[in-house]
This record gives sequence, C-alpha cells and structure tokens, in this order.
Amino acid sequence: MPVSQDDLTLIATTIRTLSMDAIQKANSGHPGMPMGCADIAAVLWSSILSYNPDDPGWINRDRFVLSAGHGSMLLYSMLHLSGYSLSLDDIKNFRQFRSRTPGHPEHYVTEGVETTTGPLGQGFANGIGMAIAQKMLAGTLNNADTSLIDHYIYGLVSDGDIMEGISSEAASLAGHLGLGNIIYIYDYNEISIEGCTDLTFSEDVAKRFEAYGWDVQTINGHDYKEISDSVNRARAETARPSIIIAKTIIAKGSACMEGSEASHGAPLGDEEVRASKINLMCDEDSTFCVPERVYEIFNKRKEELLDTYNEWQEKYRQTVTGELKDSMDRLFSTPSADELRPMLPVFTENEKIATRSAGGRVLESLYDLVPGLMGGSADLGPSNKTFVKGHTESGKNRLGRNMHFGIREHAMGAIQNGIAYYGGFIPFSATFFIFMDYMRPAVRMAALGGLHAIYVFTHDSFFVGEDGPTHQPVEQLAAARAIPNLHVLRPADAEETREAWLYALERNDGPTALVLTRQNIPVLSRGNGNGPENLKRGAYVIRDCNGKPDVIILASGSEVHISVEAAEMLESDNIQARVVSFPSWELFDAQDNEYRKKVIEHGIPKVVVEAGIRMGWDRYVQAHGLYITREDFGESAPASELAEEFGFTKEAVAESIRNYLREKPGK
Amino acid sequence: MPVSQDDLTLIATTIRTLSMDAIQKANSGHPGMPMGCADIAAVLWSSILSYNPDDPGWINRDRFVLSAGHGSMLLYSMLHLSGYSLSLDDIKNFRQFRSRTPGHPEHYVTEGVETTTGPLGQGFANGIGMAIAQKMLAGTLNNADTSLIDHYIYGLVSDGDIMEGISSEAASLAGHLGLGNIIYIYDYNEISIEGCTDLTFSEDVAKRFEAYGWDVQTINGHDYKEISDSVNRARAETARPSIIIAKTIIAKGSACMEGSEASHGAPLGDEEVRASKINLMCDEDSTFCVPERVYEIFNKRKEELLDTYNEWQEKYRQTVTGELKDSMDRLFSTPSADELRPMLPVFTENEKIATRSAGGRVLESLYDLVPGLMGGSADLGPSNKTFVKGHTESGKNRLGRNMHFGIREHAMGAIQNGIAYYGGFIPFSATFFIFMDYMRPAVRMAALGGLHAIYVFTHDSFFVGEDGPTHQPVEQLAAARAIPNLHVLRPADAEETREAWLYALERNDGPTALVLTRQNIPVLSRGNGNGPENLKRGAYVIRDCNGKPDVIILASGSEVHISVEAAEMLESDNIQARVVSFPSWELFDAQDNEYRKKVIEHGIPKVVVEAGIRMGWDRYVQAHGLYITREDFGESAPASELAEEFGFTKEAVAESIRNYLREKPGK
Repeated sequence: MPVSQDDLTLIATTIRTLSMDAIQKANSGHPGMPMGCADIAAVLWSSILSYNPDDPGWINRDRFVLSAGHGSMLLYSMLHLSGYSLSLDDIKNFRQFRSRTPGHPEHYVTEGVETTTGPLGQGFANGIGMAIAQKMLAGTLNNADTSLIDHYIYGLVSDGDIMEGISSEAASLAGHLGLGNIIYIYDYNEISIEGCTDLTFSEDVAKRFEAYGWDVQTINGHDYKEISDSVNRARAETARPSIIIAKTIIAKGSACMEGSEASHGAPLGDEEVRASKINLMCDEDSTFCVPERVYEIFNKRKEELLDTYNEWQEKYRQTVTGELKDSMDRLFSTPSADELRPMLPVFTENEKIATRSAGGRVLESLYDLVPGLMGGSADLGPSNKTFVKGHTESGKNRLGRNMHFGIREHAMGAIQNGIAYYGGFIPFSATFFIFMDYMRPAVRMAALGGLHAIYVFTHDSFFVGEDGPTHQPVEQLAAARAIPNLHVLRPADAEETREAWLYALERNDGPTALVLTRQNIPVLSRGNGNGPENLKRGAYVIRDCNGKPDVIILASGSEVHISVEAAEMLESDNIQARVVSFPSWELFDAQDNEYRKKVIEHGIPKVVVEAGIRMGWDRYVQAHGLYITREDFGESAPASELAEEFGFTKEAVAESIRNYLREKPGK
Repeated sequence: MPVSQDDLTLIATTIRTLSMDAIQKANSGHPGMPMGCADIAAVLWSSILSYNPDDPGWINRDRFVLSAGHGSMLLYSMLHLSGYSLSLDDIKNFRQFRSRTPGHPEHYVTEGVETTTGPLGQGFANGIGMAIAQKMLAGTLNNADTSLIDHYIYGLVSDGDIMEGISSEAASLAGHLGLGNIIYIYDYNEISIEGCTDLTFSEDVAKRFEAYGWDVQTINGHDYKEISDSVNRARAETARPSIIIAKTIIAKGSACMEGSEASHGAPLGDEEVRASKINLMCDEDSTFCVPERVYEIFNKRKEELLDTYNEWQEKYRQTVTGELKDSMDRLFSTPSADELRPMLPVFTENEKIATRSAGGRVLESLYDLVPGLMGGSADLGPSNKTFVKGHTESGKNRLGRNMHFGIREHAMGAIQNGIAYYGGFIPFSATFFIFMDYMRPAVRMAALGGLHAIYVFTHDSFFVGEDGPTHQPVEQLAAARAIPNLHVLRPADAEETREAWLYALERNDGPTALVLTRQNIPVLSRGNGNGPENLKRGAYVIRDCNGKPDVIILASGSEVHISVEAAEMLESDNIQARVVSFPSWELFDAQDNEYRKKVIEHGIPKVVVEAGIRMGWDRYVQAHGLYITREDFGESAPASELAEEFGFTKEAVAESIRNYLREKPGK
C-alpha cells in the first residue's frame, strides 16, 4: 500500500471526527455509516481512486457512487480532504439551507458528487449505467494501440441497496453484460433501521452475486491491507463485475455505539462524541479538526494524479484528431432540432399510423444522425418499436446502441440515469406506459437531477384493448405530469411524434416522456400556422372554426383526431367548435400569457377529451367545463368496443358536447 | 401418479386446443404460455390441487397463483374442466367486453381466480403473502391434535417474474421466513418478447434461489412423472419454500411455432392452429372441443375432493367452537368503527403530537381489539411508529403480527395484497410517503382489486427537513389521489388520525392510505359540529368565522393548523376566514351536492394551503383562487427554515392571503 497504516488510520479518524462533528452541529444526520466505512474510504481515496479535483469533468476519472446516500458525510469529508472545492465551512454547514452539503448527496449541488443518492438501490443501478456508458465510450476512443478510457466505476453500497429489487435487476444485467469495470464494495454491517438485518435478511449474498455472474470477495472492512488487496484483485478482473463484501461495524470508533442501529439515523449526542474522540485518541475539545498531515497526504496524492492527468491529456490531444475528434464533439454536444428536422421522416395527411410506429421510424433516422443516442426497452422492443435495425446490439458480454434491458423496468430507468450522469450519450428507455409505475422512482431522480433522459411510453390508454385493466393506463398521464421537471408529451399524430422526439433530444435540462399510441390514428390535416412544430408550445389550435367558437375542445394524443372529427359533425348542427391539440402541459405553461389566453380563450365553454383521468385539467378549463375522461380503471375488450362503452367515439363526443351546450354551461 | 399418462396427455391436449381456439376467436392473446405449460397444469389440476369448485371460498383450499398472467387461457381451461362455474361459452367469449374471461386473470371477475395478475412479479409476491396468511391462520386454528389448515400455495411463474426486482425482494423474505408451504413452478422456457432470454438473462437461477434459502429442483416440464414427483418432494419440504425449475418449450404442440417468441403475444393464425391440431392428433375441423373422457377424469377428481372437503368441514365443526369460533368470526368480519372508537386514545386540545405518533398510539390499541390486523414497515418501523410492542413478531423461520418486511417496499405492497387475497387478516404496510413510488404498482393492484389494505405513509412533505429533496414528497399526494379507488386520507391532527384509522379498518372494498406527518402539530380546537369524526365526509369546516367569510381556506394535514393560526391573524385585520380541513378528496366527492356546496361555498375567494403540488385542487376552488402550494422539489434544511422559505408559516400564509384579497380575486 502506498500509504502507511498510520496515515490511513489518521485519515479514517479524521473522517470519523468530521462526520460526528458535522452531524452533531446540524443535530441531524447518519453518523453510523461514515464511521463504519471510514477505513474503506481512507484506502480508496488516498491511493486508488483516480481524479483531478481541479478538473472534475475529466472524462477518464474514476467514478465513485455513494449508493448508501445517507452516508453523505463520508463523501463530503473525502471531497474536502482530497482537494475538491468543498471547504470546512461547507462541512460546518451540513444539512443547512442552500449549503453545498445537503443531507443526501445531490450531484447538481456539490462538485465531485457523481450521482444524487438516498433512495436505496438507485446508486447501485446508476453505477451499472455508468459502466455501460464507459464501455461504449471506450469503444469509440480506444484502439489497439491506445487506451484512453480505462477507469473504473466504484460504488459503496449498503444492506438496503442489496435488499431493494432494483439492485437485483441491475446486478443480473451487469453480470450478463460482463461489466468488468465495476467494483462495488458492500458495507455489510448487518444493521438496518429496525435493528440487526437478521430480522429480515439471511440470504447468502455472496452466492447470489455469484449466481448473477459477479466476482465476489469477502473481507474485513476495517483491515487496510484486505481492502487494498481486494480492490486490486477486482481491478484485475475485467470480464466480470466485482463485489467486495466488506464486513464492517457500524459507527466503528464510537465509544459506546459501535454496532448499534441507534447510530444509523441520529446524532450520537455531545457526550458520546466527546467519549468517541477520546476513544479515537483525538482531542475531545476540538471540532472539525483536520491534522496537517492529512492534507499533506492528499496534496501528495493530488500531485501524482496531476501527472497522470497531464499525460492523459497529452495522449488525448495526440490521438483524438480529425474524424475521431468530430465524433467526440458530436457525442458531447446537444443535438439541434432545426438541423435534424429536414432529415427526418414526413408523414402524409390522412395516413393511418400508430404514434409508436411513427416514433420507431423517426428513431431509425435519428440513430444515423445522433451517434450518442442509445437505449432500448424492458423486453417490449417489438411493441414499443424501439429496436433500430442495422445498429449494434447488446448481449452477453457485449454492448451496443440497441440495449436489451430485460424485464427490469426499475433498473432500466436508473441505468439510464447512470448513462446520463456519465455524459456523452443520450439514453432512452421504453416500456408500456402502464409500467412507468415500475420505474417511477428512477424517473423522479432524472427529473430532480435535470438529466437528459428520454422515455418512450407506448400503449398509452384503454385503447390498448384486450389486455385489460392491468395494462391500460388511466391515471398514468396525471401521475406523470405531477412530477416536477418531467416534460410529458402526448403527440396527436405521427407528425407531432417527430417533433416530440426533436424536442426531447434538444432539451438537456431534464427528462422528457413521449406517450404514444398502440393503435393507428390518422395524420391530421394542417394548414398554415398549425403545423406540428407547434408541439413545442404545448398546445395550439389544430382546427379552428368560422368566427367565435361556441366551444373549445382540449384534447391530447389519440383523442385529438376524434375531437376534430366530432367538431366536423357538430358543424353540421351549426355548432362551431375549435379544437386544441394539447400535447404538453409543461410546455404550454411556459408560454407567455398572451399566447395562452389566445389558445384557451376565456368565456367560451370548454371540453376536455382525454382517455385518462380528469385530474389537473380544471386548471385550463377554468370555471365549468365538460370532461370526457375516464375516471375508473379500464376493462378487457377490443379497443373499438371500449371506445363506444366509454364514450370516446366521434359520435359519442359530439353527442356529449351537444347535450352539454344545450344545458347551458356555467350554471 | 393417480392419473394415467394417456389421460394426462388428453387433458394437456385439451388445454392446448382450447387455448388456441379461444385466442384465435378473440384474435388476441398469448398462446405460447398455456401451450408450453399445459403438461404442468394437467398434472397439478388433475391430481394435486385440492379445491371444491362448489365452495370456492373454502379456507383450506390450495391456492393457485398464475403469476404469468398472460397465460390466462391456461387457467380458464382448467377452471372449466375442473368444474368451476366457467362454461365453454365463457371461454368462447375470451377477451370480450364484460366477459368472465378477460385478457389477464381478474379475481373480482372470475370465480376460482385467486389473484389478479399480468404486471409481472405481482403474483409471485402475492403468493408469498398468501403463505404468510396461511401460516398465521394455521397458528390460530391448528393445535397438536388437529391440523385444519394444511394446504399449499402453488404458483406458476415465468422468466419475466423471475427478472423483476419485486420477486427478488419477495423470494429473499420468503426464504428468511421459511415458508415451506410455497411451491412455485418456474416455466423456464427461455423465451421473452424480444427473443431468447439469453439476450439479457444468463444468471444461474437455481443458485440464486438457493442463496435465498429456497429448495430448488430442476425438471423437464413436459415429463408428467418428473412434474408429479417434484411437486410431491416440494410438499414434503416444510421448512423452506420450493421452486421447481421446469424446462419447457413455449407453444409446445404447435406445428411450426414451438420455441418461438412469435407465439408469445399473438394468435397463431388459422392455418397454424389447424396444423397444430393435426400435430396433436385432434380433429382439425372441430373447435372448443373437450373430449368426454376429460370431463370424466375431473368429475372423478371432484368426487374425491368432495369427500376431503366434507371430512374437513366435519372436523372444523368439531374443533372450532366456543372461544375459537369467536376468534374465527372476528377474523373474518369487518371491524366496526363505532364499536372501536370508545376504546381508542383521545388526544387533548393543543397537545403537540406528530400524526405518525398519534397513529402509532391508535395502532397499539387496535392491535388489542382487532385480532386480524397485522403488518409492518419496510425497515422504518421506529420512524413510522408501526411496531406494536407486546405482540408477536416475524423473524427467521417465524411469523407474527408485527411483520418486518426489510428494505423491500415493492414486495411489501404485493405481499400485503396476498394477505388480503387470502382473507382473515387486514394487512397494513408502512414506509416514508416518498417511497410509495417504490411500491406504486402494488398499490394500484390493491385499488383495482378492491382489496382491504391499509398504508401508513409518514414523513409526508418537505417538513421532513434535512433529509432533502430525495426524501421530501411533493407530487406524491397528487399521484396517490390519481389512483382510482385508493382513498387518501391526510389527517389534520391526532384526533383525525384516529378517525382515519377507523375509516381504513371499516372500508373493505379498497385500500386506504394514511398520510402522516413527521413533525409535531397541535391537536386542533373543536366545538360542536366540527368534531374529528367529520373526517369521513372528506372535508369540513374546522374553524368558522362571524358572518359570511371573506375567504375560505382549504387545507390538509399539517397545513390545517397553520391555516387556522393564519385565520386568527387575519381576523385582527378584519378579514373573516373560514378554514376547511380537507383530509380526503375521495370522501368529499362522495358527499351529496348540498353538503359539498355548503363547505366550499361558491362565490367566495378560495385559498388552498398544502405542502405539495397544486394539481387537482382547481376542481374545488373553481374559477380563480390562491394556491399556497409547492410546485418544485424540496431542499435539505431544517423544516422550520424551509417553511419560511417556501411560505408555509402562519405569517407567510396570512400575508399571501392579505395580498391576494387586496388584488381583487376573480379578475
């Protein structure tokens, strides 16, 4: 080991005392984990992890994922010691408003934090995504002579991570793909909030991970040599992901709370902190103390790494030139919708095509144009229309732009986040809209973190038909729209679907969901001013009427063409109906007041037609309106029959509107 | 084997042809699985499963869970053949509107269907819940001399079930609890929708389940003797759950599509059906053909089982008398809120107590009064306040009314559903409200199926504080309210919390979610007519004013007391504010028009105060209103600081209302 036992002890002790002090000052936090993992962190950060704090965006840096996000003080301690721009004052501000040291690590707040973690299992799967992205990038940059991308993905995972199903999904896929660049250390402290993990958890974790095809080692997590040796063995294992089961003692170093679940989620208390400092042979009167020697060790380490970094930069400049440099520039830039549009499919008026199929055709073109676009489905590729022929494909021990995620929606979402965190790629994932529920926590993380991720959710309503209520989304649109910073687009036809893809590609400050039909729907008639590019305004008049409308119909997706057809029927009754295609609330809300007032003119009766619940539409209707929506679960039957039963044919819509207007709205 | 090879072949062939015919007629469905598993089903239903089609509610019947719900025709075929009230006409109506044979099995539609399945992994975990309930019931009914509850939980699970994380969670817990009453057969056909499972799935499933502590066998799923022997061995294994990995060929028996993923999700086509019938040595011209011999076999089986059933009933009558009978009656009846209320805690006006703590105290009393109430938390018991001291506790190879689910929210929800399906128990589960997202698919299944399940979701807003945005619900209230038939209750104080528990216990046609605070809040002052029992009306005036109000404040949960305090501040400015405690939209919507109009009187400016997103509130505000809500993610900081920053102190609320009224609402 390049760092002596004594120095490692000094570093670990510093982590322990910093963590205790910060948590005590905040009077809130999780001391058990940072204290229990201090020895592991000391070894990793002092001699193994490769990074350059002055250039935290260096693409060949090692990634470190703290999946056990409640141990944030471990990470903040290490970032401070190793030279990132995180000061002792930041640490003293732990868990305070707008500090750089929030309760759980937030990558958009703190330099050096690679992922936002806290909800268990997310980080575990994020790391798998990073490993995939790394291998893809290595495929672009490395050649027989030069290896520019050769770092590792490290992770510190907890009992909770291992118990969550998402980790099982991700681990199984990682084993299948042979991601030898992954090195996870499992903080096996056998303590969870309710007490000893043997309350609920007695599986043989080593055997389970072997079953997934991982390389497994078991060590004492407080023995520096075992830690260092096991990591080095894991680095040498390039064909399989590695997990090191490190037996640790939670709150190691504390005077009276070693091994106790009481140390997990609450400060130790002033008295115990003092006693623990004595136990650790520190000055019990000083707080936030970092011995000068610790800074020296890390400064030395920083210098070594600076050399590595400079050498790498030189090699990069020499290797990445010409076409390769162009490829890299394209990978690391955001696509332009206006540049891409002319090269994408155009759909003919009245052509009948499901928006999932239109999406598939658009995606096919995009794969040729946007080299960083990659992704796939949770085993529904043929239905989601997301498999792009003629491009590379992932399989056993192999990666490609066509990912096969298996029937693992939750891991898919979090792996996608990992790819987005890594950079260079724009990941998409696909499943039936109903199964968004299975991956919702990962979608929320993408929205919270402002990740550039795209979701292809097909089979978007009861129009799914025979598969029945378990497969028919009803509340999913509302529930998706509820997530802050997720942009939900439900295009009305194939033309809007192309525009939705373009929007999703260009938007790089958060995720976008494309909500697409299973069933064929016509490409809408369009004149001047109501072209599909209006999708980006969120809502626009797709069919206007002569003079002031008697009624304004707001509809999205497959209900737009029904509404247009109903409007035409109403015209023969001398009822003038304007139809608004309303693919996205979020985009409409971002328009100026004038535009919004023009589209949803006040004082005119409004009708909402959407094959989902009403919830939230009232905001656009104001006062009274008619809601042709579906408030209950669906049923198993052919889609056309359901449309009749549920009132979603053009005839039924026209009839409902006629009745509504007759009964004087606004009463 | 009690049934001859030839007879088994005849049954299996009947399943295969019935399935092909039904799917062909519907022109929709999944023929691959029922054909692939026909041999397994033939053995199970003809000589192993114990049931009485004339009394499908018999509590000692075997439970059969078709976790691979897309194979519904397998189940419908067997229900028909074995004498349940499902006719050939029903089968001819496969996947048609309001038929008794929907696309995926729905337990509320079809007698003999034990669980609603389709979303993968749910059935797998439901079975674990059933096994838990069975062992709990056996604990009540069995004694050293008499074993009244000794059936098994059988399940047929697919590759998709095994890949989903929820199954990993459930399997790990089942192994831990030593549920030897579980016998799952894994239809290992190696085919998923995108093709051969080796695209994504190469783990060693046997080894993985051994790691969970399961008994594992591997067999040929088309060899009757191997099927029968393995199930018998699994029945003899009482200390561990069993999984039988049955190697099968998807669409076995079809002429040209054996082993092909093309047989999974679409009818085989007329020509292939005819060819397959020839292949199976059937008359290719007849459809929906059941040889008389098949009915004979099952009639004979039914007679045998009727003897078993009658003997059991006799034994039950003799054994279950007196106190034991009273216990059973209580287990299988719905508690009465009015009977329970007088025995529950009362909270004193102005006492400060978090609703999670109040809920914990109520639960403690309820455990003494309602013997079927059982449940626990996904490792957050000390925070959710759901562990009830003095009652039995689950642990390794042991069950009790205090369940420890481990950090496995999704499995918890589906296991809870399994307990509810089983009957006799009212299961609750608990976690932080933010982690409802992790179990959302299971909550939806409970709502769809009308299951009597209760959720305790604590830490219900940004008032969580320092843990930050990953732990602070913002959109969760809206997203929960979006689920049809889920009743969401967010009580305003400890007194309403007691009423919420009572409501949840009495409501037996769907799940109820209790959304509770982390932070202490005061017990509200109440006069006549605004008592906490008004919770069941969904919304009621908690603080009225003199004369016609200038403003009506609608608030829920911890924002009610803030609103009351703000109203008192406004009074000194001569602004008359009425405050409505609004714990539940669903319950309020169920009130008559008159009551609703009285509470949210039209024509008076409205203000919504809720620490979550605005979405959906517009419906109650009508026209213009003021929304003191939180549209963006939370932040990490002490809760009191966040309340100030986000405008949720009484001062901020009063100030916002003053400004709003000054600017003339309704403009």
